[in-house]
Amino acid sequence: MSDSQGIDGATRIYAVWGDPVKQVQTPRLINPLFAAAGRNIVAVPFHVRPEALARSWEAFRQMSNIAGIGVTVPHKIAAAALCDSMSEAARAVGAVNSIQRTGEGAMRGALFDGIGFVQGLGAARERLAGADVLLIGAGGAGRAIAHALAGEGLGRLQIVDLDPAAVEFTADMANRAAGAPIAGPADSRPGDATVWINATPMGLRPGDTFPVDTALLSQGTLVADIASLSRETELLKRARALGCATSDGNDMLNAQIALIAGFAAGLEPGEPLS
Amino acid sequence: MSDSQGIDGATRIYAVWGDPVKQVQTPRLINPLFAAAGRNIVAVPFHVRPEALARSWEAFRQMSNIAGIGVTVPHKIAAAALCDSMSEAARAVGAVNSIQRTGEGAMRGALFDGIGFVQGLGAARERLAGADVLLIGAGGAGRAIAHALAGEGLGRLQIVDLDPAAVEFTADMANRAAGAPIAGPADSRPGDATVWINATPMGLRPGDTFPVDTALLSQGTLVADIASLSRETELLKRARALGCATSDGNDMLNAQIALIAGFAAGLEPGEPLS
Repeated sequence: MSDSQGIDGATRIYAVWGDPVKQVQTPRLINPLFAAAGRNIVAVPFHVRPEALARSWEAFRQMSNIAGIGVTVPHKIAAAALCDSMSEAARAVGAVNSIQRTGEGAMRGALFDGIGFVQGLGAARERLAGADVLLIGAGGAGRAIAHALAGEGLGRLQIVDLDPAAVEFTADMANRAAGAPIAGPADSRPGDATVWINATPMGLRPGDTFPVDTALLSQGTLVADIASLSRETELLKRARALGCATSDGNDMLNAQIALIAGFAAGLEPGEPLS
Repeated sequence: MSDSQGIDGATRIYAVWGDPVKQVQTPRLINPLFAAAGRNIVAVPFHVRPEALARSWEAFRQMSNIAGIGVTVPHKIAAAALCDSMSEAARAVGAVNSIQRTGEGAMRGALFDGIGFVQGLGAARERLAGADVLLIGAGGAGRAIAHALAGEGLGRLQIVDLDPAAVEFTADMANRAAGAPIAGPADSRPGDATVWINATPMGLRPGDTFPVDTALLSQGTLVADIASLSRETELLKRARALGCATSDGNDMLNAQIALIAGFAAGLEPGEPLS
């Protein structure tokens, strides 16, 4: 269905839940993909507050034309606890961002933040193999990215976060996923890393103190900054001034949306919608 | 918003609930009205089963971007019991088909079946004043129509139904609404009525036994049959063969959709959306 005038009684719903919800990009980005694939599915936003999460979950689970639910802040962890099953990434990180409702009303959670990040690198993804990677931020996004990086054959994953417990959790999870002790707290000069990844919101505001000295960034480094969507961050500005290859939040978002579209349409996690 | 590619985080939802829901026409008919009025509202179907009605109601009541809920079979009576307030027609009939969610989360029920029917008559509506009207069917639709007819200055309202209790309820309600004893069981020759209204599903299938002998229909009678949507009924066929003025279910549906669009957009019941 290509437009809301194509929404009919047989349309299935991909419900996007957030609090707030006005800022969500998913409906705007994903509906053209459903339309292009000829799927009668429409993504629609719902303002769901934390205290209404469980009740809303039960209600939507019982509606047979719900294709799935997308969750954003602040529901990613709470929704994981409600899922009947989860993808490996979702289980490892303890969070979901997309839930598929099966025909029987079972709710399958998945987390596409990490794999979306890696796929969003495009051709630069191949530079991860053997690389010394500096990951800045071990919150929700950082953990998801660390989990996906563990599958890319890194040489080393150095993690920076103000919270040592978050670094430890993330490194342990990445090491389990990789099956080798690749990850740990940053313990060398950041300038040695060949890939820098910012998974924090830092750098959008001029006054932000970035956790790593960007003066140490050197030419030839691959720099990804997921904080950057409509505006450039300080890190990306510096990287581009040096001629570094870069990736921003839009690359991650677009790759993720394609993965979510397939999952919402009933495919296995990672299968592209066509 | 003119299409699903215009659905964004700020879009408000008019949720259409039914069991089943595949057959609902509301999204297809109402979304162009929202778009034409520049309202960022989209109607979307939800398959809500009776046992999930109360839970779904509470969940949707708490979502601040829900504009309203449309209910169809089998929820019209059960939903009335959940409303915080109701329009006069909804209260009199004991059913709702559209619920407006106010900014504070209060749920205001309305029933547009009756007024939709009357408005759908178009110019023929003026023939109701002083008329002897034969209403066939005192179920949900018949009651709603009887309530609206009571405001049109009829001379008389004769009601036919297989269930005498339904006739009595409907006549009492219409008499209260009219403030005069205009309504009762059909007690004269149907051929005397100057307006015939079929508010039953009878007449769509060739084998149906219509509750009134259509051979009694005479030229010059206004004939409305809400059972007729995509197909003609036996009653309408006969009426058209006689050259009678006619009205069908689409007239009622289209008039109602315009009323529902206004109500969903936050207007008072009956205010047109513009």
